[in-house]
Amino acid sequence: MLDLTQDVGALTAAIVDIESVSGDEKFLADTVEQALRALPHLTVDRSGETVVARTFLGRPERVVIAGHLDTVPVAGNLPSRIEGDLLYGCGTSDMKAGVAVALKLAALVPEPNRDVTYVFYDCEEIEAERNGLTRVSRDHSDWLAADFAVLLEPTDGVIEGGCQGTLRADIITRGKRAHSARSWLGVNAIHAVGEVLARLNAYEARRPVVDGLEYHEGLNAVAVRGGVAGNVIPDEAGVMVNYRFAPDLSLEQAEQHVREVFDGFEVVITDGAPAARPGLTHPVAAAFVAAVGGIPRAKLGWTDVARFSALGIPAVNYGPGDPNLAHQQGEYASLTKIAESELGMLNWLTTPTL
Amino acid sequence: MLDLTQDVGALTAAIVDIESVSGDEKFLADTVEQALRALPHLTVDRSGETVVARTFLGRPERVVIAGHLDTVPVAGNLPSRIEGDLLYGCGTSDMKAGVAVALKLAALVPEPNRDVTYVFYDCEEIEAERNGLTRVSRDHSDWLAADFAVLLEPTDGVIEGGCQGTLRADIITRGKRAHSARSWLGVNAIHAVGEVLARLNAYEARRPVVDGLEYHEGLNAVAVRGGVAGNVIPDEAGVMVNYRFAPDLSLEQAEQHVREVFDGFEVVITDGAPAARPGLTHPVAAAFVAAVGGIPRAKLGWTDVARFSALGIPAVNYGPGDPNLAHQQGEYASLTKIAESELGMLNWLTTPTL
Repeated sequence: MLDLTQDVGALTAAIVDIESVSGDEKFLADTVEQALRALPHLTVDRSGETVVARTFLGRPERVVIAGHLDTVPVAGNLPSRIEGDLLYGCGTSDMKAGVAVALKLAALVPEPNRDVTYVFYDCEEIEAERNGLTRVSRDHSDWLAADFAVLLEPTDGVIEGGCQGTLRADIITRGKRAHSARSWLGVNAIHAVGEVLARLNAYEARRPVVDGLEYHEGLNAVAVRGGVAGNVIPDEAGVMVNYRFAPDLSLEQAEQHVREVFDGFEVVITDGAPAARPGLTHPVAAAFVAAVGGIPRAKLGWTDVARFSALGIPAVNYGPGDPNLAHQQGEYASLTKIAESELGMLNWLTTPTL
Repeated sequence: MLDLTQDVGALTAAIVDIESVSGDEKFLADTVEQALRALPHLTVDRSGETVVARTFLGRPERVVIAGHLDTVPVAGNLPSRIEGDLLYGCGTSDMKAGVAVALKLAALVPEPNRDVTYVFYDCEEIEAERNGLTRVSRDHSDWLAADFAVLLEPTDGVIEGGCQGTLRADIITRGKRAHSARSWLGVNAIHAVGEVLARLNAYEARRPVVDGLEYHEGLNAVAVRGGVAGNVIPDEAGVMVNYRFAPDLSLEQAEQHVREVFDGFEVVITDGAPAARPGLTHPVAAAFVAAVGGIPRAKLGWTDVARFSALGIPAVNYGPGDPNLAHQQGEYASLTKIAESELGMLNWLTTPTL
């Protein structure tokens, strides 16, 4: 039985010591569910290895506090160990420190000023179709209904608003095959890639301000391919580009933009995920910023906040872990930052609302 | 026992009907050796599946007449069949028609006006290190000593002089890896490929005249590679280029040229084979052209004539097969052209020399 009365640093260590590599979260999910079911003010639901616990106090606002239970594969960095202020181990920053903060809030605040939905989900570190949040938003979207969401991903204790979208496309060039000893009989598709790269080199990325936060786009080649054999003029080549776009564009607008940049070429969209607006202008978000403190910044990478955004729920990333340590063998989290995060969140959920 | 008294078309059919896919030439090599050993004016040597037969008449000049015994894999196109003037079957054009012409000459001309070295070799259609001509030129270069060589590869009965060289090089670009959501923290190695392709697009290929024949060079990308993952700015990319160069350049000069074109980039030479001068200004070659007739043209693809050139022996391609049918399922050869080729060669070896 997980002891939710211990301090948040010790609780983090306890959770870190329960291995939960993606796909193997069952024991940790069981442990979390058991601890939450022991709290009479919470209604607990379960879907696969995802646990959702809600207060039903009839508050005019509801907020989601979410974190994933899984980690990347262990790399000889378990069990956890403490050195000074630092807790070392797989998943400390990404993101069991955040999970511990959420569990502490669940236990410490039986009557929050806003109804709260705690979400602990599985398979965030792997392909999107196995992601527990994706599954629950499809099968039980009512469990996630809320006015605002906080995702406890590592942000070094800074509020990061929304996230940029991502879109990948193949820009394809075509030519005519020929023997390279008589190259003038063919048309070289790789040479045609030169114009694709010239457009990328000339591209000026936008830095738009959305809901008060400055984003920074990018349009980049992430792969290039072409070639039939060492003595053949190739008849096809392709550049995979990745467009990271600010949340003032929809996925459809982003696709349109890529098609315009590569006008005249064959453009095949291979995958994409929408951006999420930071939504910090919403009163519940403003209250969160005021309670937690600090200056919010834009989230540039794509995160699961976009899944909330897709449900119409403004969302931010805010967690005590260090994003630069995520997925590293030497991963650690600062015990001070974990405690500060707990205090900020407590403040938010207990300060009387207007 | 191969009957060398039958007409050259029937002899071609008989040889075609002895399967000899690369690596499996033993039976045909045995058959050819046996037929040649029955001719008292020839001295016969053997290395692996390569058969060399020479006259030793003390003539002031010696010429090589060479052909490979192997074919590409059979594609349901055996046994051979005749339709009108056309002999269909695997290896008819490439190059058993030429082999049959050489065998007829060996049998018909016991006292040629020049000493003759007949070479029937294996494994031409596969990797160079297994090529019988490569092996013999290394282990028994004295067998190949000559003033001039005729390779009976399919040329549609036209003399094709020398051959262009080929050189492959990787042009490598380097950058700095970064997450594609923060692309400005990295340097995109694929984008740097743009300049490599710009130079290729601006490149003007030479068409030099060498020993009276016009060659046509080419510098082309034959492969392009780059990419780490769909969300990573790649730190390395590469373009493989293939330079087909005229025989007025040595392999070293060709390499130097490629390095100059891509000055500022990392250039790694991956493989190369020298060009061969047509050597048509040599008296023995001029006599060949006069005897066989027609207007010689430059050979643009690389062929085994370069192996003779490397031994200091001028060499030409001249064979009755059709090069456009080589390696095709519907391969055939014209019986008329085979007979014409035999006559031209007979004329060359029997006309009194000055």
